[in-house]
Amino acid sequence: MIELEVALGERSYPVLIGAGLLRQAGVLAPYLAGNQAMVVTNRTVAPLYLDSLRAALGQVRADVFELDDGERFKTLESYSRIVDALLEQRHSRSTTLIALGGGVVGDIAGFVAATYQRGVRFVQVPTTLLAQVDSSVGGKTAVNHPLGKNMIGAFHQPGCVLADTDTLATLPEREYRAGLAEVLKYGVIRDEPFFAWMESGAAGLLRRDPDALAHAIETSCAIKAGVVAADERESGLRAILNFGHTFAHAIETLTDYKRLLHGEAVAIGMALAADCSVRHGMIGERDASRVLAVIRALGLPVEVPAGIGASAMLDAMAVDKKAVDGRIRLVLARGIGEASVVENIERGALLATLSAACDG
Amino acid sequence: MIELEVALGERSYPVLIGAGLLRQAGVLAPYLAGNQAMVVTNRTVAPLYLDSLRAALGQVRADVFELDDGERFKTLESYSRIVDALLEQRHSRSTTLIALGGGVVGDIAGFVAATYQRGVRFVQVPTTLLAQVDSSVGGKTAVNHPLGKNMIGAFHQPGCVLADTDTLATLPEREYRAGLAEVLKYGVIRDEPFFAWMESGAAGLLRRDPDALAHAIETSCAIKAGVVAADERESGLRAILNFGHTFAHAIETLTDYKRLLHGEAVAIGMALAADCSVRHGMIGERDASRVLAVIRALGLPVEVPAGIGASAMLDAMAVDKKAVDGRIRLVLARGIGEASVVENIERGALLATLSAACDG
Repeated sequence: MIELEVALGERSYPVLIGAGLLRQAGVLAPYLAGNQAMVVTNRTVAPLYLDSLRAALGQVRADVFELDDGERFKTLESYSRIVDALLEQRHSRSTTLIALGGGVVGDIAGFVAATYQRGVRFVQVPTTLLAQVDSSVGGKTAVNHPLGKNMIGAFHQPGCVLADTDTLATLPEREYRAGLAEVLKYGVIRDEPFFAWMESGAAGLLRRDPDALAHAIETSCAIKAGVVAADERESGLRAILNFGHTFAHAIETLTDYKRLLHGEAVAIGMALAADCSVRHGMIGERDASRVLAVIRALGLPVEVPAGIGASAMLDAMAVDKKAVDGRIRLVLARGIGEASVVENIERGALLATLSAACDG
Repeated sequence: MIELEVALGERSYPVLIGAGLLRQAGVLAPYLAGNQAMVVTNRTVAPLYLDSLRAALGQVRADVFELDDGERFKTLESYSRIVDALLEQRHSRSTTLIALGGGVVGDIAGFVAATYQRGVRFVQVPTTLLAQVDSSVGGKTAVNHPLGKNMIGAFHQPGCVLADTDTLATLPEREYRAGLAEVLKYGVIRDEPFFAWMESGAAGLLRRDPDALAHAIETSCAIKAGVVAADERESGLRAILNFGHTFAHAIETLTDYKRLLHGEAVAIGMALAADCSVRHGMIGERDASRVLAVIRALGLPVEVPAGIGASAMLDAMAVDKKAVDGRIRLVLARGIGEASVVENIERGALLATLSAACDG
């Protein structure tokens, strides 16, 4: 078992990574706040891992709330139903919310934990690659709004993240690949050797080689933990984790969260961000080509879906959280392994990128 | 103008108290985060003070969201409509939410500020006595749920509280008296001389004598600021501010938030808490009588409304946030000017208090 720490003073917590962790009875017991708990999960994950999770909780008997599976259920309405259940089942302020599933489950359960009776304990048990390397670490919680992704949320750090890599064995191929997009992101923004390792080892990752997977997850979580510890509430450095995401969120909004998985949208967004970085003279075309080549080698898309126009993209991007006072900010690459926020993005360069990539 | 500080490290902020503060053009400008703002207010307060508030904001033009007036609109649905408006009007993460009104407006606008795009700047402009002495200071934000008051919320400190005591001139008599309940509370839990001052000066407070009012508001805010600075997230001392409130919340839930103002429910709750303190041997009957006498002298109720039974009260109290793992905790008086949390409250003593006070 690997144990990393997200160093946030009195809000510090461990990220536990390893094969078979969920099969260790009582492994989560030290992280519960009291003798009540509620597991939030979904109909796909529950049949696979709920029994193991119950054993991992030790003596505490947990209530369970099952969501439907999918990003389109990450709504204020789902949130409200979980709160109803907590109150109906008389959960007090010393209950613990446990997210068992992917990013949707983690984000929504985390937002419930952040706001139920003004905040209760939270434990993340991510079962997708994307959640293990990204969304479960760092305390961002949220639900979507019809006008934009993650528009309602809070920062609320978990008390523990437990990533059992065995759970990835049951992950559908498409979801697995989508998770690799976030893994690749860490290389692009922060770690050239890690990027180069993926460049040469994409095949091993695609066949879920255990050693490759362990290295990918550990490195990703270590990078994320370091960035979050340096800037918990995204007033500076942390924004680089959004590389590709402003484009991605716009695409997801315009496709109503239905056509693409988040990681797929991020893959396309990274391709657009790389192109935009070239147009801003921040990287050369060769670097952009390397990024595109790895995205493709990981079996991920690089093209904006048909039917989305450049001006619709621009509008959707202006609503994004990264926009300040109507001006668009973007995270761009300064090379492989380095990224930074560019304020007041040049409309011309952005439109050139969008026009080249979009239908109309 | 009196300026108090709520000392919370980098989240410290001023509480500005005085007559005519809202008429000072630009007085709030230093507390805005950027060049966007949204005022949340209600249909009663807007016609009276919105123009002054606009001038107080200086150059920044604010959007306005008007709620219907009343505790029964402090819901997740109202919250959701404010978020809709912010997104439709393209407010970014650097907007500022400004609450202009009483506790309902402040609580709901504060919860929006806590969660819109994971948190934006917040300014409180309380226009009721209750909000000026209590709810606007300390960072508690919330909306109600059909199963309990303030069940959904967050801690989110404002960047500034501006209490213009002139706004109290337009306050209806019943609301004004309800605010005095919270003023009295500070004396009971923390400041015997302040209690004694109210005991002898209730008449001056009732006729809104400006000097008496200034003293009452300043002392109340100073006590609250001190308690909040010592225990921001209510892990200890801060709980004493809930004196009378567990009873009050149960009464409000059982009357569907419709029959009583919050301060009126708190007045009844303090009478019950005083009785319960006697039954626990923590204070003598003389102290309890003094508390009841001042509540009555301030024109506030001490009787549980007809039709509410003891067992219904007990059930409603067990859902309260102050309940831990189904056990009821209460704040009880240890004397005039001192209070503490009693865990694991004795059911017998609680039932005796409730049976004596309730219909059935």
